Amino acid sequence: MHAYRSKTCVELNKDHVGETVRLSGWVHRIRDHGGILFIDLRDHYGITQVLCDPDSPVFSEVEKVRSEWCIRIDGTVKARDPELVNPKLPTGEVEVFIRDMEVLGAADELPLIVFGDQEYPEETRLRYRYLDLRREAMQKNMTMRSDVVSSIRRRMWDKGFREFQTPIITASSPEGARDFLVPSRLHPGKFYALPQAPQQFKQLIMVSGFDKYFQIAPCFRDEDPRADRSPTDFYQLDMEMSFVEQQDVFDTISPVLAGIFEEFGGGRKVDAPSEWPQISYRDAALWYGSDKPDLRNPIKMQVVSEHFRGSGFAIFAKLLEQEGTEIRAIPAPTGGSRKFCDRMNAFAQKEGLPGMGYIFWREGADGMEAAGPLAKNIGPERTEAIRQQLGLGVGDAAFFLGGKPKTFETVAGKARNVIGEELGLTEKDRFAFAWIVDFPIYEKDEESGEIDFEHNPFSMPQGGMDALNGDPLEVKGFQYDLACNGYELVSGAIRNHKPEVMLKAFEIAGYGADEVKNRFGALFNAFHYGAPPHGGCAAGIDRIVMLLADQQNIREVIMFPMNQRAEDLMMNAPSEPASDQLMELSLRVIPQD
Amino acid sequence: MHAYRSKTCVELNKDHVGETVRLSGWVHRIRDHGGILFIDLRDHYGITQVLCDPDSPVFSEVEKVRSEWCIRIDGTVKARDPELVNPKLPTGEVEVFIRDMEVLGAADELPLIVFGDQEYPEETRLRYRYLDLRREAMQKNMTMRSDVVSSIRRRMWDKGFREFQTPIITASSPEGARDFLVPSRLHPGKFYALPQAPQQFKQLIMVSGFDKYFQIAPCFRDEDPRADRSPTDFYQLDMEMSFVEQQDVFDTISPVLAGIFEEFGGGRKVDAPSEWPQISYRDAALWYGSDKPDLRNPIKMQVVSEHFRGSGFAIFAKLLEQEGTEIRAIPAPTGGSRKFCDRMNAFAQKEGLPGMGYIFWREGADGMEAAGPLAKNIGPERTEAIRQQLGLGVGDAAFFLGGKPKTFETVAGKARNVIGEELGLTEKDRFAFAWIVDFPIYEKDEESGEIDFEHNPFSMPQGGMDALNGDPLEVKGFQYDLACNGYELVSGAIRNHKPEVMLKAFEIAGYGADEVKNRFGALFNAFHYGAPPHGGCAAGIDRIVMLLADQQNIREVIMFPMNQRAEDLMMNAPSEPASDQLMELSLRVIPQD
Repeated sequence: MHAYRSKTCVELNKDHVGETVRLSGWVHRIRDHGGILFIDLRDHYGITQVLCDPDSPVFSEVEKVRSEWCIRIDGTVKARDPELVNPKLPTGEVEVFIRDMEVLGAADELPLIVFGDQEYPEETRLRYRYLDLRREAMQKNMTMRSDVVSSIRRRMWDKGFREFQTPIITASSPEGARDFLVPSRLHPGKFYALPQAPQQFKQLIMVSGFDKYFQIAPCFRDEDPRADRSPTDFYQLDMEMSFVEQQDVFDTISPVLAGIFEEFGGGRKVDAPSEWPQISYRDAALWYGSDKPDLRNPIKMQVVSEHFRGSGFAIFAKLLEQEGTEIRAIPAPTGGSRKFCDRMNAFAQKEGLPGMGYIFWREGADGMEAAGPLAKNIGPERTEAIRQQLGLGVGDAAFFLGGKPKTFETVAGKARNVIGEELGLTEKDRFAFAWIVDFPIYEKDEESGEIDFEHNPFSMPQGGMDALNGDPLEVKGFQYDLACNGYELVSGAIRNHKPEVMLKAFEIAGYGADEVKNRFGALFNAFHYGAPPHGGCAAGIDRIVMLLADQQNIREVIMFPMNQRAEDLMMNAPSEPASDQLMELSLRVIPQD
Repeated sequence: MHAYRSKTCVELNKDHVGETVRLSGWVHRIRDHGGILFIDLRDHYGITQVLCDPDSPVFSEVEKVRSEWCIRIDGTVKARDPELVNPKLPTGEVEVFIRDMEVLGAADELPLIVFGDQEYPEETRLRYRYLDLRREAMQKNMTMRSDVVSSIRRRMWDKGFREFQTPIITASSPEGARDFLVPSRLHPGKFYALPQAPQQFKQLIMVSGFDKYFQIAPCFRDEDPRADRSPTDFYQLDMEMSFVEQQDVFDTISPVLAGIFEEFGGGRKVDAPSEWPQISYRDAALWYGSDKPDLRNPIKMQVVSEHFRGSGFAIFAKLLEQEGTEIRAIPAPTGGSRKFCDRMNAFAQKEGLPGMGYIFWREGADGMEAAGPLAKNIGPERTEAIRQQLGLGVGDAAFFLGGKPKTFETVAGKARNVIGEELGLTEKDRFAFAWIVDFPIYEKDEESGEIDFEHNPFSMPQGGMDALNGDPLEVKGFQYDLACNGYELVSGAIRNHKPEVMLKAFEIAGYGADEVKNRFGALFNAFHYGAPPHGGCAAGIDRIVMLLADQQNIREVIMFPMNQRAEDLMMNAPSEPASDQLMELSLRVIPQD
């Protein structure tokens, strides 16, 4: 017989009754029922009940085992009495009488109980991650993560993509975030950097004549701590294709993602890719107050400026006299009560706005009547026009925000979320996707008036060189995001592969040719040797798994995560280096005050 | 029609004659045949001949294109004249008459010609890697590497393994080589390290209750340059299993590797796993002078000390009076000529030995006779006994080396290789595998007399604690390598998962308990909470692909490799950091003298 097991802890059933088996696993629970010891023996695959009475030759040894000891037992499979069958366990029809036992690994007193759902401080969980990971929920999350990544690979291969690994020790590339630097021993004073993304490499792979690339790629950013992201690194599905337009990228990646959400979504509804809307960046801001809208929420905001221009609601009327201002309405079907409207108004105030005006419609003495101070101020005619524009009726409400859109759009988006949630309008158990397109290439810094890249300097401007010769703030890029349930899941672009267009694009943002050559030299040089048009995208693996596993904290879907202070408590990282290590690297640490 | 292509450059054949098609790709070759321009248009998939005569509306533009320009053409598919069909090309039956053309990406003068097999200095190839990679051989190597890795993944999944990613930014772990360090910004003066291998993490994954782990894992070592290895990082197939013994690991990984070599070996013979011998480390040293023997070479060395003890060959006879000495023979079937024997003797001298004595057997006047000075010295009886032991005959030779085995084993191994090669005994077109087992856990430093780990401190000693209480130099580990054609392809072990055995093992090597806790704290702590027995191995991906692609230089199978000075010439890494980057990291570079 095998030294450790003839079966795993999920395999035994009635068919095995009478057999002598060998099992190995962990003591999940141990109970003493009138002198008989019952152990739930657990391995990665399942749980089998094993038991021992004083007749067993190893009873006195079994008496000593405690939770989470790793043991090997030999025993005989017996059928359970019908009333003791556990239908929740695949092995619930049988139990194993222990005839022999070996302790494979004893356990000290546990800082964290594996059995059950007891909550522990994150520090404890991370320090004893090997115990935390034994818990059912973590086993499930890690297994799902692995299976999601495998499925992504299979789906990409099926589409003719090949995975190529790009360098991890490479050059600093100023892509917005901070690089992690790696000092070079052979070249004192020089440093490598860990890649923020394989952006330049994947583009170089296209220039190298490969047609379809993908990679489950580690990305490294020295970020300041935030709850929902890893402070050091994350993984993305990175892909790139040659000879494609924007729609080709959508047609390629959409079914891959839809397939993943179908496969691992646990029956939640997944919108079909053919139904994923393409929404311009501007419309998304207007309709949803966000470039990653949650489309499970049916609320769509509208511009209602005309109804307030010159109206008796002086605040809005005056506001509209300033250039660039607008009044927008958030329709709130079924939100037609003063209590709800006041709560939403308070929400807006908490978010830093003076408040949200509102109107709600109720059944009055003479039929439908509009309530709320705003309705009184603008009068019945305008109120009715607004109601008709928004398609609302008795029992509904609308909220109003005014000013320069940039100043209230984000809060409007949040209000839309809260309204959708509170009124139960936002569908549960659904994954709703939308492509956000036509991102502006440039933005103007409100204070300095300077023009800089809005997002990513590598995107091809729509209209190419001609467009760059016009108003920069009007230039849109072939640049896109995929939003899902309020999260940005994917980001990508058709790339700017023409060196002269690249130079011009950077010039507008204030970067000279020398700086382009210096900062993006490899790519810029490569574009001088027959670069193909190309584009692609990157999808966040951690985010996808978080959505599928219904987790809010990224550390629930990473095997060995850093804490929020970017420390690995289990491995004790970072730590002080040996002085000869620093010496070899020609480095000295500047003492802190 | 699609903006760039209706077909790839491999798809057109007779069935498409008459169709209007759109192709995109690179100008591979351009020829002018009596005013007609022929272009081999190349993409990742293949080559299509396109042509243009002065009747084409875009003739004057086509005249301008040069090698490696990326272009899009529209044209009509025509059948080639039968005598012009190129059977070597999938598209060789047709050609496309250009009606329209667009330059997608022009090219400057080329530093490296893609077409043909011209050799370039490595610096040029690495600096313009995106051109180098367009060459047929590199496209094939990279494609094969990607396909090998995919196939490994499929095979591991099929065996019930899941891939889990382990941290890349982690703690320094003294595993023998130098770590790459990563300074922490949030914790001034502290450093992370890039993992030399996921060794500790994969063991922690087993302690966490996962049963079968693998990973195509990047490993980082700050190595001094050497031709056949990357100076910064490499990839391995890393795997680990719980509740296993050594043979379980062999049974799991052997078919995976055999399958890969079958799939990508291009018809070369692959020894079946059932025939892979298990050879002890000692026998490998004796028989092959190497712990990674090339078994395509049938030569097996033998101990022949007894024939020389007290013989007339004084050098060996005296040598044997010293303790720990041996005489070993390298049989050389078909090597029976003075010329060959002298050449091998000269080889040994070049390798730093005084020379190799030899005997060879030839047809003499009275039948077989033994020739060479050695035979004379020891006389016909001993010579014949040697011949019989080695199973040699007329036309064969044998070489002899003596002393303490450690002093000549390596040269003996090399001589065996050269003899096998030169005599044509070493089979070509075959992958021959052998498991090398029973590695000693400890070695004694010849000079200091101190005992240290021979290999890897994590292996379980055969015999456990009892063995450690005996002579340390006799302790063998459950530790193994897989050799293939003279290379170490895989290395692995059953791990030491018992904290008390771990402490004892380290104590013998001179490490106190505090040091173990300090250096391997995570693992040592984890072993106190119910650790399962576990083991695994790691296989070198770069090495596997090199063998399959028949390449000697690791840079032929890596997309964007460093040069031997650990520089990325294309990306310009490493480079000097901005002073504010160093400031943020609280670091100062010590000026070099």
